[in-house]
Amino acid sequence: MHIRDLHAVILAGGHGTRFWPASRRALPKQFLPIAGRRTLIAQTAARLRGLVDLEHTLVVTSADHVALVERFLPKLPRENILAEPVGRNTAACVAWAALEIEKRSPGGVHAVLPSDHVIEPAREFRRVLAAAADEAAETGALYTLGIRPTSPATGYGYIEGGEVVSDHPGIEVRRVIKFVEKPDRARAEVFVASGRFFWNAGIFVWSTRAILSALREHAPDLLGSLAGIHAESERPRVYAALRSVAVDVAVLEKAQNVRVIPIAFTWSDVGSWAALSDVHALDADQNCAAGGGRVLAHEAQRNIVYGKRGELTALVGVHDLVVVRAGKAVLVCPRERAQDVKSIVARLEQGDPSFL
Amino acid sequence: MHIRDLHAVILAGGHGTRFWPASRRALPKQFLPIAGRRTLIAQTAARLRGLVDLEHTLVVTSADHVALVERFLPKLPRENILAEPVGRNTAACVAWAALEIEKRSPGGVHAVLPSDHVIEPAREFRRVLAAAADEAAETGALYTLGIRPTSPATGYGYIEGGEVVSDHPGIEVRRVIKFVEKPDRARAEVFVASGRFFWNAGIFVWSTRAILSALREHAPDLLGSLAGIHAESERPRVYAALRSVAVDVAVLEKAQNVRVIPIAFTWSDVGSWAALSDVHALDADQNCAAGGGRVLAHEAQRNIVYGKRGELTALVGVHDLVVVRAGKAVLVCPRERAQDVKSIVARLEQGDPSFL
Repeated sequence: MHIRDLHAVILAGGHGTRFWPASRRALPKQFLPIAGRRTLIAQTAARLRGLVDLEHTLVVTSADHVALVERFLPKLPRENILAEPVGRNTAACVAWAALEIEKRSPGGVHAVLPSDHVIEPAREFRRVLAAAADEAAETGALYTLGIRPTSPATGYGYIEGGEVVSDHPGIEVRRVIKFVEKPDRARAEVFVASGRFFWNAGIFVWSTRAILSALREHAPDLLGSLAGIHAESERPRVYAALRSVAVDVAVLEKAQNVRVIPIAFTWSDVGSWAALSDVHALDADQNCAAGGGRVLAHEAQRNIVYGKRGELTALVGVHDLVVVRAGKAVLVCPRERAQDVKSIVARLEQGDPSFL
Repeated sequence: MHIRDLHAVILAGGHGTRFWPASRRALPKQFLPIAGRRTLIAQTAARLRGLVDLEHTLVVTSADHVALVERFLPKLPRENILAEPVGRNTAACVAWAALEIEKRSPGGVHAVLPSDHVIEPAREFRRVLAAAADEAAETGALYTLGIRPTSPATGYGYIEGGEVVSDHPGIEVRRVIKFVEKPDRARAEVFVASGRFFWNAGIFVWSTRAILSALREHAPDLLGSLAGIHAESERPRVYAALRSVAVDVAVLEKAQNVRVIPIAFTWSDVGSWAALSDVHALDADQNCAAGGGRVLAHEAQRNIVYGKRGELTALVGVHDLVVVRAGKAVLVCPRERAQDVKSIVARLEQGDPSFL
C-alpha cells in the first residue's frame, strides 16, 4: 500500500501516578521527557516520521490535556486532536478514532499506538508497521504487535500465537489462539518457557472498516452510543454514557480474525521509575540520568535519577535508588519499590493535593 | 557583676562545605536554619537575650558576609560587625574584637562564642556564662567551657581538667592541665573513660584586659600587627599580614591561668548533616525534618531531610539517609557518610563551580 493512505491514532489519555512527582494530574507521563530529550508523545510521533505524517495522525487525549498535546506536537493540526470529556478506556478511543478516520478518508488502514512507550529502533518499527498495514489492507484481519517476553512479567496481558498464516516478506504473522489477562508468576513462567506467548503491547494495525465491523459485531453498544460524537456540544453527554472497557476485552478477545506479529526489537512501556534504566544510556557505575539534569555520583551505583536541565543531583555512597526532583517535590525510594510511589500519592490525595 | 558590663563576640567567619548544597560559598552554615526556624547565628544571639544585648555584641565575619549578618541580626548596630578582609582563623578575630571592646568600654568582661553551635537550654547557658563572667572579673583568669563528652569523638580538641579551683556558686571551675589536639580513637576512648577530659567547644569568657595581656605575652606579633586595624583603609593590608592561627593554639595552650568550666547540658557543633537528628525533634520513625519543608515518609526510618518551606520530600522504604534539597541541587547519601559531601564539593570545584 501507499504510505500516504496510512493513518495513525496515538492514545494519550493516560493519567497514571507511577511517575509522581514528575507526572501529576496536570502532567501525565506521556508529556514527560523520561526517555530522552523529548516527551514520550513527541517521540511516539517522531518514530512514525516518513511513514505517517502528522496530517494523518489523530491524538486521543483528555480534554484537560489538549494544550499539552499542542505544546509537544506543535505541528499536529488542531482538528486531529480528539478531546475526551472523560476517560472511557481504549475501546471508546479506538471506536471514535475509527469513525473519524473513516469520515475523513474512507477505506484506509490505520495503526493504533500508545503515546507513552519506547520502541527502538524506529526504522525497524516503521518497517513492521508498513508491512502490517499492507497485510491489513489485503486481508481485513486485525493485527496486534506481540513483544517477545524477556521475563515472566505479571504486569502485562499475554497473547498466545498459533501457526504462521502469512508469508508477507519481512514479518511473521501468526494466528492468535487466545488472549490471557495478567497471569500469576507461575503461569507467566510457563508462558515464557513455551516460546509461543507474547506481551500485548496495545499496538494495533487494521483497516478502518475492519475494526468498525468488529466493533459493530462485538461492541455494538459502543458504536451506537458514539453516533452523536461528531457534534461537539453533545460530546460530554455521549462520552459519559459510554461503557469503559479496553479494546482488547471488548473486541480482540472475541474476534476470530486477529493476528499477532511478533517483534523482537527493544520495547518498553516504561512502567515505573525503575524502567528508566532500560531506556537510557548508563554511566560507568550504571547510574541513569534522565530528564536533562546533571548527576554527580561518588561511589554510587545503579541509581536512577530524574531532574531538569540546570539541576544537579549529587549521590554519595548510595546504590539502587530512585531519586526524583520535580517541581517542589523530591522522591527517594529503592528501585525495587518504585511501584510504591502510589502509596505517597494516596497519602497526598488524603492530605495535601497541592503536590499532586 | 552587672550584666550591662558584659560583652559578647560572635565568631561568624566560617566557610565550611559540610552542609553543601544548603551551605555554599555565599551562604555558610551559620546563616542556615538547620537547627530550627531561625538561622544558627540568630539563635546564637537570641540565646544571650537578657544577658548580653545586641548593643554589646560584636560579630566578626568575612567581609563577603556582612549583608547576611545584617539580614539575620537586623537589630545589631552596623558598627558592631567586624568585617574581615580575609579569613585568619580565631586568634585574629579574638584579638581584634578585644581591642575593639577595650576601646569602646574599657575594663569589662566578654564572652566569645561560635555562631554555629546549638546549646540548650538557653537559660542554663546564660546562668553559666553569667557566673563565669563574675569569676573572670574577679580573677583575671581565662575561662573555657568544657563539654562533657558523650562519645570518644575524634573530631574535637580535648581539655584535661585538674582540681576544682573555685567555689563560685552554681558552676564548677577547674584548673586546666592541658589541651589536646584531635586525638585518635584509642586515645579518645581513654579520655572519655577517665572522666577528666572535656571537649573544647570554643566558648570562652574572660576580662578584656586578661585576654589582651595573654595575647601580648604569647602572640605579640598578632597584637602588634593589629595596631593599624582601626583604620578601615589599612585593614586589608593589616589583615593579610596576620598569622593564621587558632586562639587555642596561639594563647590558651600556652597560658598558665586557664580554667575549664564543665557543662553538662545539650551542646552540638552541628558538624554535618548527620548531626541534625541531635538537634531536632524526630517523628515516630525517627526521621528528622529540617529547614521548614515537609516530609512524607512511608516505611522509612531514621532519615535526615532538609528542604525549604513549601517543599516536599517523599521517602519510600529508605532508611538512614541524608536527603537535602537546596537551590538547584539535591544531595542523597547515607547518614554515616555525611562527611563525604566534601568529595562532591571537591569535584564541583574542579568541574562546575556554579553549584558551589
